[in-house]
Amino acid sequence: MEIRAAVITVSDKGYAGQRQDLSGPALTEALVAMGATVVARTIVPDDEEQIGRTMIEYADVLKVDLIVSTGGTGPAPRDRTPEATQRVIDREFPGLAELVRWEGYRKTPRAVLSRGIAGLRGQCLIINLLGSTRAVREGMEALAPVLPHAIQMMRGENLEHGAARNA
Amino acid sequence: MEIRAAVITVSDKGYAGQRQDLSGPALTEALVAMGATVVARTIVPDDEEQIGRTMIEYADVLKVDLIVSTGGTGPAPRDRTPEATQRVIDREFPGLAELVRWEGYRKTPRAVLSRGIAGLRGQCLIINLLGSTRAVREGMEALAPVLPHAIQMMRGENLEHGAARNA
Amino acid sequence: MEIRAAVITVSDKGYAGQRQDLSGPALTEALVAMGATVVARTIVPDDEEQIGRTMIEYADVLKVDLIVSTGGTGPAPRDRTPEATQRVIDREFPGLAELVRWEGYRKTPRAVLSRGIAGLRGQCLIINLLGSTRAVREGMEALAPVLPHAIQMMRGENLEHGAARNA
Repeated sequence: MEIRAAVITVSDKGYAGQRQDLSGPALTEALVAMGATVVARTIVPDDEEQIGRTMIEYADVLKVDLIVSTGGTGPAPRDRTPEATQRVIDREFPGLAELVRWEGYRKTPRAVLSRGIAGLRGQCLIINLLGSTRAVREGMEALAPVLPHAIQMMRGENLEHGAARNA
Repeated sequence: MEIRAAVITVSDKGYAGQRQDLSGPALTEALVAMGATVVARTIVPDDEEQIGRTMIEYADVLKVDLIVSTGGTGPAPRDRTPEATQRVIDREFPGLAELVRWEGYRKTPRAVLSRGIAGLRGQCLIINLLGSTRAVREGMEALAPVLPHAIQMMRGENLEHGAARNA
Repeated sequence: MEIRAAVITVSDKGYAGQRQDLSGPALTEALVAMGATVVARTIVPDDEEQIGRTMIEYADVLKVDLIVSTGGTGPAPRDRTPEATQRVIDREFPGLAELVRWEGYRKTPRAVLSRGIAGLRGQCLIINLLGSTRAVREGMEALAPVLPHAIQMMRGENLEHGAARNA
């Protein structure tokens, strides 16, 4: 099963070259380990407009199956990744955001401070992760066992077995 | 305590008679086991308009206390039960949807792939479950210990004890 | 680190003087134990308009860092604290509401019946708790380990360590 993925690092300092982006590469690595092909990767500043535009391009033009962002999900004044995501998705996917928080919380309590959301834009799944390499690794550990199945279902592939029936 | 409930199976194939509806009967059975009377049961296709109209009829005309749906909560292109539900409720009830997902996840990881929501339309509680018999049984197992209390509170019955005070 | 907090008890009966407000004092006590200074405390009826207006005054005029409400989060017809909160916040903070429910659920299953939300209004964090003293204590127990950090992040204070980077 082929999964085409894209990675977006959201960071004012990373965009300005004032800080090395470590969470983007960590995310790419985790996606590849899950069996995905990362076809695009970029750094954008904490700007709602620019985050949303990048997601739209990846979903509608590159037609990737999966966009994972890192950064901009906290409560700081500039953190607006969830708001940008909310504006570009057409259906929410709350369980994936909850999963990242509750599995994260068991290891690192402050994982609950991610305001990240997950949702669908047409046939593209978009998920927000926190901006640290640790949060990215732990988030992908929680997601990897269910993401390929979620993407198969999103494509409308016929899954006539067990818990997926009629789902 | 009397609970009047209704069951909606959301399934294109079930509606077209191309697949036997097993999750609707499983849901009915679980509701009866919880002490509810199931006063209505139907199968509708994965059509946002039709799902919403059925919920409105059950809530406003039949005046049931509880509507539980099964199916249409996944990420497939036609899955729009949560969106239909969102349009007919006036207040969200997030804890019930979270409960179904997190208890489900402990047994069946892909339970987190339900995009189901829960909410109130006036004095009617509406909950979305996944479309498999297993998910329906596990969802109702998680819900049964708290649903009767939720319905009492929804009715505004005076509950002057313990954790319910002022709730 | 200074945290300026405000407490809002939402209760028709408490407002009318027909019931002693026990959860407001319990909440104040828990906030002080966490190291916060409670600069304002009031009782309002279950009125969406009035709850929202009080939150706006505390956030915009008193400029508190944190508002915690108790009561009005259930499914009873008059319970509209989450709806009032939704109208005054500009960004949601779902992990804090989930945390209160899932930690609460482990001790008291009906804690999932709180429809409480959490969010940010500018640089003020607002959280809804249930209306019982027990729920208030358990909710604050779950929140206390992460709230000070959340408030630091909300202020945009530079947190160049571990999981908070880029968050």
